Amino acid sequence: MACSKPKENDEEPILNEAKKFFSPLPDTFQSQDNPITKQKVELGKMLFFERRLSVNNMVSCATCHAIEYYYSSPAPKQMGALELQPRNAQTVLNAAEQFVQHWIGNRKDVEDQAFKSLTGRAAFGNPSEEEVVNKLKKIPQYVELFKKAFPNERDPLTAENIAKAIGAFERVLITPSRFDKFLKGDKKALTEQEKKGLKTFIEVGCVVCHNGVLVGGNTYQKFGIFEPYWKYTKSDSIDEGRYVVTKKDEDKYVFKVPSLRNVVMTPPYFHDGSVESLEQAIWIMGKVQLGKDLTKEQINDIINFLKTLTGEIPEEAIKPPILPP
Amino acid sequence: MACSKPKENDEEPILNEAKKFFSPLPDTFQSQDNPITKQKVELGKMLFFERRLSVNNMVSCATCHAIEYYYSSPAPKQMGALELQPRNAQTVLNAAEQFVQHWIGNRKDVEDQAFKSLTGRAAFGNPSEEEVVNKLKKIPQYVELFKKAFPNERDPLTAENIAKAIGAFERVLITPSRFDKFLKGDKKALTEQEKKGLKTFIEVGCVVCHNGVLVGGNTYQKFGIFEPYWKYTKSDSIDEGRYVVTKKDEDKYVFKVPSLRNVVMTPPYFHDGSVESLEQAIWIMGKVQLGKDLTKEQINDIINFLKTLTGEIPEEAIKPPILPP
Repeated sequence: MACSKPKENDEEPILNEAKKFFSPLPDTFQSQDNPITKQKVELGKMLFFERRLSVNNMVSCATCHAIEYYYSSPAPKQMGALELQPRNAQTVLNAAEQFVQHWIGNRKDVEDQAFKSLTGRAAFGNPSEEEVVNKLKKIPQYVELFKKAFPNERDPLTAENIAKAIGAFERVLITPSRFDKFLKGDKKALTEQEKKGLKTFIEVGCVVCHNGVLVGGNTYQKFGIFEPYWKYTKSDSIDEGRYVVTKKDEDKYVFKVPSLRNVVMTPPYFHDGSVESLEQAIWIMGKVQLGKDLTKEQINDIINFLKTLTGEIPEEAIKPPILPP
Repeated sequence: MACSKPKENDEEPILNEAKKFFSPLPDTFQSQDNPITKQKVELGKMLFFERRLSVNNMVSCATCHAIEYYYSSPAPKQMGALELQPRNAQTVLNAAEQFVQHWIGNRKDVEDQAFKSLTGRAAFGNPSEEEVVNKLKKIPQYVELFKKAFPNERDPLTAENIAKAIGAFERVLITPSRFDKFLKGDKKALTEQEKKGLKTFIEVGCVVCHNGVLVGGNTYQKFGIFEPYWKYTKSDSIDEGRYVVTKKDEDKYVFKVPSLRNVVMTPPYFHDGSVESLEQAIWIMGKVQLGKDLTKEQINDIINFLKTLTGEIPEEAIKPPILPP
């Protein structure tokens, strides 16, 4: 009946469908515990690139999360100050919005992640918080910047405030893309091909885990529901995921569902960076998560959709800061 | 007699004196073997930041030569792909103009340096040139960019051309500073304090080795003429310098005299990064190279002059490229 059919110019079924699962990115990822201020973000940006946060001055946050790789790294696992990181470095673009941080959710939020990195052996490897705090206190420019970023504090240069500043910077690392335009109602923001991809992404079941603002990043899931993941990823060693943290059997091989924002720009894939190609990664996801052997066409469709999630890095975050000598 | 004294407004004795020792930076550092083109520089910039040039995708040229530290590193010695670099990473800003590359002169020019880094264990650690070339050939965007940068070549994606592109990029990394303005005749480009510093720099003898366009970088010199360097630097291990290359006794503890361009921005100092403070470094240079115990005032004067050598990094080199996934 003509009356029940929506007029073509007013509604688009796939847009309405998409709105059920996804939401556009906000302007900032707010935090009640760490209000975002310009001074904190500026200081946080410097600290994000500051190798002197590490015990041997060798690594900064930006070592694993490099601008040129969309704030990630092309290495399966990247060296920290003293040893290899245990898992693949995910992009920190949009990461602040995740429900937990790290692949196994052992960090509450970006501030907790930054704080624990200071002394973590695989991250910055400092023997204590005091050590790194004292190192920064010898650089007069930092003493001033902490005063400005944390006014009314008697001793603003602390490990907690290092973490808060870095957290504040990460909370503005937001990359709106064409998909956000689409979600906000601009039907022409995606091509017909990309809309077909979005449809496939929903229909085959990817959307069950990859949904919300980040197209993922909001739940845990077992990696390998239908078959063990390592059968396909050919992983060198078997990572037991959240089980490492909780020691509960039901958490074996459970990982945070990664956000797919900018996924095209951030190979290699999976928690151990074991797979280089996106085609391969999607095919494996079909096999082990959905019990489906996705066709080349379906995979291609999905890639067309995923390309619409590549966003613009904020102007200020495209350029590293020049740091005090 | 008044007639022999120059009019104060026409000439400035210290400017004339400076012109005897120093020359301003040119716009580019030309090479007959590797003509600079826009396409080569753009490709070279990408390759400079390309971690996939290393065997494990972990390090790029920019790992040791980071924008945020004026294209150097704050670590005394920085990790390469597989092991610690043997010596401190000097800034590559203006480095192309040096008479040889590396502290011990074991690289002819920037192209030779880049070429040998590809397979060097402490640099990128590739088992062979072919390995890294084949890796790049799998990235279609690079295949295209090499074609454009090296037209008329049948197989442009080669190890030699990787080195030439990186070399071309380094040949435009030039940071003119207030000192260049001064040398070009702008007498007000330096303050009276800084001119006093320049005078001290010349008078105490620093200028004997640190002269020319780069204020150094154009000769070899024994480090420790009056006393062994390690007596003051407290170096962990004794580096025999050029002797490592030539096995000639007269090359023991001989190093390339480093350029002092941007020296204020690039601690730590010396071939092994053994000294963090510039004050300390200058005092040690006085002791071991000049046989002088420089006073606090002299050291301060010299620092005032060295500050005038901090230049502006070219606009295009202040921002890393976004690399193909």
